[in-house]
Amino acid sequence: MTSSPSAPRPMFSRIVDAIAPSTPFVGPEELERRQRRAFLVRVGANESAFGISAAARDAISKVLSLVSHYGDPENFDLRSELARQNGVAIDNVLIGSGIDDLFALLVHALIDPGAAVVTSLGSYPTFNYFVVGYGGSLHKVPYQGDLVDLKRLAHEAKSVDARLVYLANPDNPTGTFHGRDDVRQFVELIPKGCVLVLDEAYLDFVPRDDLIPIDCENSTVVRLRTFSKAHGMAGMRIGYALASHDLIAGFNKVRIQFGVNRLAQIGALASLRDPAFVAQVVDEVSHGRADYERIGRELGVRTLESHTNFVSFDFESSERAETVLTELLRRGVFVRSGAPPFDRLVRVTVGTKAERATFEPIFRSVVNDS
Amino acid sequence: MTSSPSAPRPMFSRIVDAIAPSTPFVGPEELERRQRRAFLVRVGANESAFGISAAARDAISKVLSLVSHYGDPENFDLRSELARQNGVAIDNVLIGSGIDDLFALLVHALIDPGAAVVTSLGSYPTFNYFVVGYGGSLHKVPYQGDLVDLKRLAHEAKSVDARLVYLANPDNPTGTFHGRDDVRQFVELIPKGCVLVLDEAYLDFVPRDDLIPIDCENSTVVRLRTFSKAHGMAGMRIGYALASHDLIAGFNKVRIQFGVNRLAQIGALASLRDPAFVAQVVDEVSHGRADYERIGRELGVRTLESHTNFVSFDFESSERAETVLTELLRRGVFVRSGAPPFDRLVRVTVGTKAERATFEPIFRSVVNDS
Repeated sequence: MTSSPSAPRPMFSRIVDAIAPSTPFVGPEELERRQRRAFLVRVGANESAFGISAAARDAISKVLSLVSHYGDPENFDLRSELARQNGVAIDNVLIGSGIDDLFALLVHALIDPGAAVVTSLGSYPTFNYFVVGYGGSLHKVPYQGDLVDLKRLAHEAKSVDARLVYLANPDNPTGTFHGRDDVRQFVELIPKGCVLVLDEAYLDFVPRDDLIPIDCENSTVVRLRTFSKAHGMAGMRIGYALASHDLIAGFNKVRIQFGVNRLAQIGALASLRDPAFVAQVVDEVSHGRADYERIGRELGVRTLESHTNFVSFDFESSERAETVLTELLRRGVFVRSGAPPFDRLVRVTVGTKAERATFEPIFRSVVNDS
Repeated sequence: MTSSPSAPRPMFSRIVDAIAPSTPFVGPEELERRQRRAFLVRVGANESAFGISAAARDAISKVLSLVSHYGDPENFDLRSELARQNGVAIDNVLIGSGIDDLFALLVHALIDPGAAVVTSLGSYPTFNYFVVGYGGSLHKVPYQGDLVDLKRLAHEAKSVDARLVYLANPDNPTGTFHGRDDVRQFVELIPKGCVLVLDEAYLDFVPRDDLIPIDCENSTVVRLRTFSKAHGMAGMRIGYALASHDLIAGFNKVRIQFGVNRLAQIGALASLRDPAFVAQVVDEVSHGRADYERIGRELGVRTLESHTNFVSFDFESSERAETVLTELLRRGVFVRSGAPPFDRLVRVTVGTKAERATFEPIFRSVVNDS
């Protein structure tokens, strides 16, 4: 490392200095700027195609004139409603600016540099991004087919003395899901002192009875949830964690106290109180998934069994998937692939009926030509 | 430390484990819940009393139906406009979810545990909160009267080999301001390898010509700005940093890529393009400050020379200030004091004319009785 007297080098922390610069997440807007035109269909980021509830929109509109006020740093009203709906105490609920913000907070609060963290090879990369950002050491366990290998995940957590183990359930980018018995057994296998980051971003798309019961006495599990999917509020940045009082108390020591935006607090509360809206979204999404599955069958492309608002098409090789992906982008369809080994997948978010009607002929043509 | 087999203790990082639990920031909503009634006047958090611009409100209203989309992770449109208005390149601009979020990011990226950080004793405590959260070691330099002691700050930065030195200019909670010559000399005194966190949250309330020129070739200075004050968007959580390309590139390695909410991106852009609105707010604020200064003179309570949207009344002792503060809160007026030695101040945000009319007789009565 050289330094010149006229331009002193910035001095980053050891951890940040060691991270290679990269653009880990290229958003659809950036792709549009590169292509110099807007996408016809935006079905790549698992955003909801069905907007926000009218109740949420009205609530947000009403407070626009008071957006000059900071949001309540305690997030009291929203936490109260979440506590009530989930049968936990308010001290078991933590609000963050989306799951990403909660990932950063959890990793910051729970791991020391060099600590072992276990996840699945090819699962949600954003979690890994924050582990790297805080100097954690990632250990990645292969899937068993399309499913996260829970036994191996627990075994790895034990053998590397992991501080954190990550499970997205339903999973991203596969869309697959482990039922309550599997997850209960998995939780029992997690070694003492290790925390399970149970990412339930897509929970609204599975029946509540298929989830393990909430147990906030147990400090082994932190459940993460978001208003970005079924509630249609990705752009508002709001999510929550359910965890033991002890864990939440630690997170509170370092969270951004005034971090959550006021419109999101108010919109999320209104959306929670409008369960009919989410039920309708879930219903529309299941029709959309069936549409995609039919298209896959007709084209001879396998689809993974999804419990989310997206369906992944399996092109069996990363080369073919990349050909399809590139051509879809070129023709104005924003979709994404996964990280290896799931770079053989093309992941398509359920769009509205109109969006699916735009998507289908382009997709058929691209797949048939590739 | 004891542990029982049925309730394993959460394992926090060494840094977070060492932080004592506290409630560092009690919001007005929490005070209202404790008092079981709403405040008559909310003039304690330096929020703008003058709302957001009609242009921003319209822009936000228009995209409410697309709030299901994540914001552009590059914040391209907003960064482009900020770059243009500030005469810098887009790569010199970083967007965050308010200055708090940017504090967390800067401290994360720039300091290792144990690193020395210098600030002024009694200045903005939120910065300190993040330094503690990342394990930094705070060194606090006394003010010289009402003013940050720039020479001593630079001297301390050198003598403790600081990685960061903090200056809020205009300052909070004093409201005082150092002109461009003072700041230029200060920047020259900052030791190599130390970064100045120049918090310009209140910059809109001082003439631009009184600020040092923006020099993004120099990696010594990171300037932080917000839409929470004159732009009236505190509840939306959006701010920005201006810094050298090298520094921004490092921050980009660990920032929350999809962290900024879409409504805030769009609202901030619209507000930037409506300078007449901010000019009007600044004008109204200067009338309000004059009002408060007059009240102070009439009551025989010294006011500090403020260059912000608040005025601090000096009650000369922390005891008298606390008596006044407590009684104001009890009578429905939300105000705040400072951290020692500025716990002798009562800081009052400029309200609307109507709010000031509500505030004045209560304040007169409380001061006269205390």
